Amino acid sequence: MSTAFDTIRAILWEEGKLKLLDQRLLPQQELYLEYEEPRAVADAIRKMVVRGAPAIGITAAYGVVLALKQRIAEGGSDMAAKLEQDLAYLADARPTAVNLAWALKRMGKVLFNLPEETQDPLAVMLAEARAIHEEDIAANRRMGELGAALITEAGYGVLTHCNTGSLATGGYGTALGVIRSAFAQQRISRVYADETRPWLQGARLTAWELVKDGIPVTLLADGAAAALMQQGRVKWVIVGSDRISANGDVANKIGTYSAAVAAKYHGVKVMVVAPTSTVDMSLASGDLIPIEQRGAEEVLSLGAQRVAAEGAEAWNPAFDVTPAELVDAIVTEKGVVLNPTAEKMAQMMEKS
Amino acid sequence: MSTAFDTIRAILWEEGKLKLLDQRLLPQQELYLEYEEPRAVADAIRKMVVRGAPAIGITAAYGVVLALKQRIAEGGSDMAAKLEQDLAYLADARPTAVNLAWALKRMGKVLFNLPEETQDPLAVMLAEARAIHEEDIAANRRMGELGAALITEAGYGVLTHCNTGSLATGGYGTALGVIRSAFAQQRISRVYADETRPWLQGARLTAWELVKDGIPVTLLADGAAAALMQQGRVKWVIVGSDRISANGDVANKIGTYSAAVAAKYHGVKVMVVAPTSTVDMSLASGDLIPIEQRGAEEVLSLGAQRVAAEGAEAWNPAFDVTPAELVDAIVTEKGVVLNPTAEKMAQMMEKS
Repeated sequence: MSTAFDTIRAILWEEGKLKLLDQRLLPQQELYLEYEEPRAVADAIRKMVVRGAPAIGITAAYGVVLALKQRIAEGGSDMAAKLEQDLAYLADARPTAVNLAWALKRMGKVLFNLPEETQDPLAVMLAEARAIHEEDIAANRRMGELGAALITEAGYGVLTHCNTGSLATGGYGTALGVIRSAFAQQRISRVYADETRPWLQGARLTAWELVKDGIPVTLLADGAAAALMQQGRVKWVIVGSDRISANGDVANKIGTYSAAVAAKYHGVKVMVVAPTSTVDMSLASGDLIPIEQRGAEEVLSLGAQRVAAEGAEAWNPAFDVTPAELVDAIVTEKGVVLNPTAEKMAQMMEKS
Repeated sequence: MSTAFDTIRAILWEEGKLKLLDQRLLPQQELYLEYEEPRAVADAIRKMVVRGAPAIGITAAYGVVLALKQRIAEGGSDMAAKLEQDLAYLADARPTAVNLAWALKRMGKVLFNLPEETQDPLAVMLAEARAIHEEDIAANRRMGELGAALITEAGYGVLTHCNTGSLATGGYGTALGVIRSAFAQQRISRVYADETRPWLQGARLTAWELVKDGIPVTLLADGAAAALMQQGRVKWVIVGSDRISANGDVANKIGTYSAAVAAKYHGVKVMVVAPTSTVDMSLASGDLIPIEQRGAEEVLSLGAQRVAAEGAEAWNPAFDVTPAELVDAIVTEKGVVLNPTAEKMAQMMEKS
């Protein structure tokens, strides 16, 4: 599966432990933290040691394996109830990305239905977590091909927002997977990456991934994206998603909606790349998606340095919702939905 | 002239010296730097010790006084030629804000036409610089009244971008002057301030000014502005300008265009507040305005800390151009131009 364009793994299972590349330290420091306890995994998700919707789903799946290991070691009679609590704790780590709930539901379905005669329940659960991880990589590869094929006018740049690469997924990436495939096929010449305030995922993570892959990357302040489009430098905005509602509305990193509005104004197309684990068919529209509000200090400070005057407040939603009418294509591993509607989304989801 | 809403002066002339509040250190440190040499003043403008279109015009005017003082002290026969060079050096400090050229032209007109019998040429030039400074404050007060009157639907927030307050002008502010007046008149409830990457004028300077004045201020990442409008929290975007072309196109801090496009999409109105010294009737349209490109390190680093991976490039235009069709009102000290056109701009400029 590995190619020159796929060298980073942020989530590893080794020697019975979960290892997470601490994304808060990148790109200055490449440090893997080890986890043996499910609540510590939940905290790692909350504190953004690991981030990106598919990546936190995979991480939580491994967290369930650690929960089972811990509860088996403890022994006792009420293991199922305790495991339910562990899964609930993991589910509460972050609210917007539905991949977290999706992965926990899938793990729970196996966990709470293990046949009595199961010899090695840990091995079964680890196999399920690994399957979630590997299926995500395969989905990314498939989406990379499907999305790249949509870019028919070669030689332009593309704009992306936040980080949707190997770091945000099991590997390869969603939007960044499409970008990797499209660059390999010489369909795009350069990636313009929004720096993505306040957490600077674009500056810190996307640039790092692309430099590693030898793909030309130009960073810009988020506010410069509209001016970039005004100059005709990009034909596509390509982003990931944290949750897509049944009608094709897209929750994604704050700033995505701004880029989509500007794209509409300039005739630039918007492609959203996400596995079906990101699609929440239980929500009719995007206004029902819970949007995480993060701490004001992410805006009021830069790292440890307070920037804004004492007394200033901050509004810091981690995500925004782009309505389906601003989206030209949703790319999942099951196929491409052009100009998404509830009907088209349902048809796509029903595919095997 | 001073009121509770007007406590900051970033440009002072005291004891024959120019004193500039170092805006690179705000709000952590309030330090005035002293200047006695015109080239040092030009460098201060270039390095953004002082910034904001009207403020750099005023600063340059005082720089001309220092140039004359220096050349008189030197003596020599070719004083006029040397002064021409001094003015040219000052003019080269930054390219986009036309107020710089405007102030130097006005100072030069007096300087190079001083009657032979002038007893104290320094006093004449200082009076002219002071006049430029005081007229700017008066213009801001006038614009504050004119702009506030446009806000007829009370009780909403307004969005502003960059810093257009006392720090960016002779005092009171352009867009922030309107905001001060509108808040005093209870026409607005709160100011939402884009943090304004990469230089964070919103986070560092605008929040500081508003907190000092007791006006509620909420900072947000630039990319969140469209989501703020989606929620209906603001009815107006109010910004300044660095140069307005004859047809009403508006060059302003990078990110302004993004906010204007989002405003158009949401039915939010856009008000541009700038004295007529910002209007460049020699340029037919905004695409002719020179846009300063600043160093990549402003995007690739945060302060002294490198953020982006080595090998990443950056696109860092300091300004963008918002076409007149996205502007609902241009407010100058001569009056308000609604839905600006070349004809309306010419009529406004001809007023006395």
